[in-house]
Amino acid sequence: MKSFLECIPCFLSQALRAGRLAGLDDREIKTLLDEVAVMIPSIPMESTPPETGAIIYGKIREITGKHDPFREIKEKNIGEALQLYPRMKEIIRKADDPLLTALRLAIAGNVIDFGVDRAFDLEKDIEKILRQEFAVFDYDIFKEHLRSASSVIYLGDNAGESVFDRILIEEMHKPVTFAVREVPVINDVTRKDAILSGLDQVADIVSSGSTAPGTILRLCSGDFKKSLERADMIISKGQGNYEALSESDLRIFFLLKVKCPVIARDIGVHEEDIILKYKHPDQKS
Amino acid sequence: MKSFLECIPCFLSQALRAGRLAGLDDREIKTLLDEVAVMIPSIPMESTPPETGAIIYGKIREITGKHDPFREIKEKNIGEALQLYPRMKEIIRKADDPLLTALRLAIAGNVIDFGVDRAFDLEKDIEKILRQEFAVFDYDIFKEHLRSASSVIYLGDNAGESVFDRILIEEMHKPVTFAVREVPVINDVTRKDAILSGLDQVADIVSSGSTAPGTILRLCSGDFKKSLERADMIISKGQGNYEALSESDLRIFFLLKVKCPVIARDIGVHEEDIILKYKHPDQKS
Repeated sequence: MKSFLECIPCFLSQALRAGRLAGLDDREIKTLLDEVAVMIPSIPMESTPPETGAIIYGKIREITGKHDPFREIKEKNIGEALQLYPRMKEIIRKADDPLLTALRLAIAGNVIDFGVDRAFDLEKDIEKILRQEFAVFDYDIFKEHLRSASSVIYLGDNAGESVFDRILIEEMHKPVTFAVREVPVINDVTRKDAILSGLDQVADIVSSGSTAPGTILRLCSGDFKKSLERADMIISKGQGNYEALSESDLRIFFLLKVKCPVIARDIGVHEEDIILKYKHPDQKS
Repeated sequence: MKSFLECIPCFLSQALRAGRLAGLDDREIKTLLDEVAVMIPSIPMESTPPETGAIIYGKIREITGKHDPFREIKEKNIGEALQLYPRMKEIIRKADDPLLTALRLAIAGNVIDFGVDRAFDLEKDIEKILRQEFAVFDYDIFKEHLRSASSVIYLGDNAGESVFDRILIEEMHKPVTFAVREVPVINDVTRKDAILSGLDQVADIVSSGSTAPGTILRLCSGDFKKSLERADMIISKGQGNYEALSESDLRIFFLLKVKCPVIARDIGVHEEDIILKYKHPDQKS
């Protein structure tokens, strides 16, 4: 998905929010905002929003001098999600359709996102999403592809949410490769976060090579790109990966909660909607 | 009120919204956003937000090539407010405390504001505000000052809202000077809009000299500043005038609906609150 005019004020909002979360003081945040602002005229509107995100979050690493400025907050979120893990497994055990319930829980985990402007209450959001209708629901195709796939590539999104991804992966009963970001970028899941989430017990963890808050193919390693092209099935989690890949030539199942008006418009749904959308090259928008 | 970090993304949101309302195409809006963005590092955080607003809305006049880019939409709002006028007069006629009801109606008119990011439904908002508790309610001091004042200066805010201001002025039974902006700046009330609202029948209309969406003293004419200093009573309407004057040495009654988190924090109230606040120099924050 390309950048829209609405993304421009949002880049500054994201920088402000992330600067605060990373513990920058007001003077440092002003510097960050100034640097992002002067960059705006040179942002190509054809680039995807996470490409600009990569620059913003790179600047935060620079100003904080920390490789992983969101370390503590990510570990807190992973810890909280792990505490919910037994209860979620119990919900799955009692479900009529465990795979579908696991898909819903994976979306519920997608509320743990510091890249968007909204507070979340994890337990309430889980309750809600377990009952919510999907706005796009390509579940039959999903089951069909999953049945015939010999392996699956799962593109991770945020730390904490990664525990919910693990639950879905456990219900898929297939060999899974879980892709993480190459470097810490806001609260996106890295190899370290994936291991803390227990994903190493259920999947191979690989870096996509992307340093952006989304799997931007141009930034991915050659090996990872090849594995995507050859994949039997790709599951893409969250908004950043959607923005990065919605116009690619790959066949992808997008699994996300819509938390931004621009993405809602692009998909043709509303904010707050939950989505399981199969996209293949012939449908390119 | 000085500018806060939150104001920075908001300047770009305001530019985007105003550009759309003024009928700019996407390429022109991108130019506008770029120009506002590169200006950000040079915005002094000690300046009030309407000082930056003045530059943004000046750029919109420049790009549209129109002296009053919001002419049509302002006339539409004034027309709608005038249609409600008889019904509002009827509400006042039946009210236990006509002055207080007129104050509430004047605040209800303050929802007609294109400088903030929210839709409004005028009739619903009137209903709501007629019943809403004030979060700051210096009504006794207001009545006392009004009783002893031989004249009042009333600082106008938006076009359309101006019809509601007229109703309050009619209930004040004092000679009133109604101050308008020097030039059209977003949908702020100008002399022409004030006359369309019928304010010339109940008040002297004067320009403050300000070209900003707020009565910024530095931009006001010498004559107007003198009249403010000598005024028996000043009523300031809306957020822009609050931002411009909250730290001045003048004695002022601020009458507004709070529609922005930064102003809410500055006053110590919540968004959506309605305010009648008396401020005098000894209380300077």
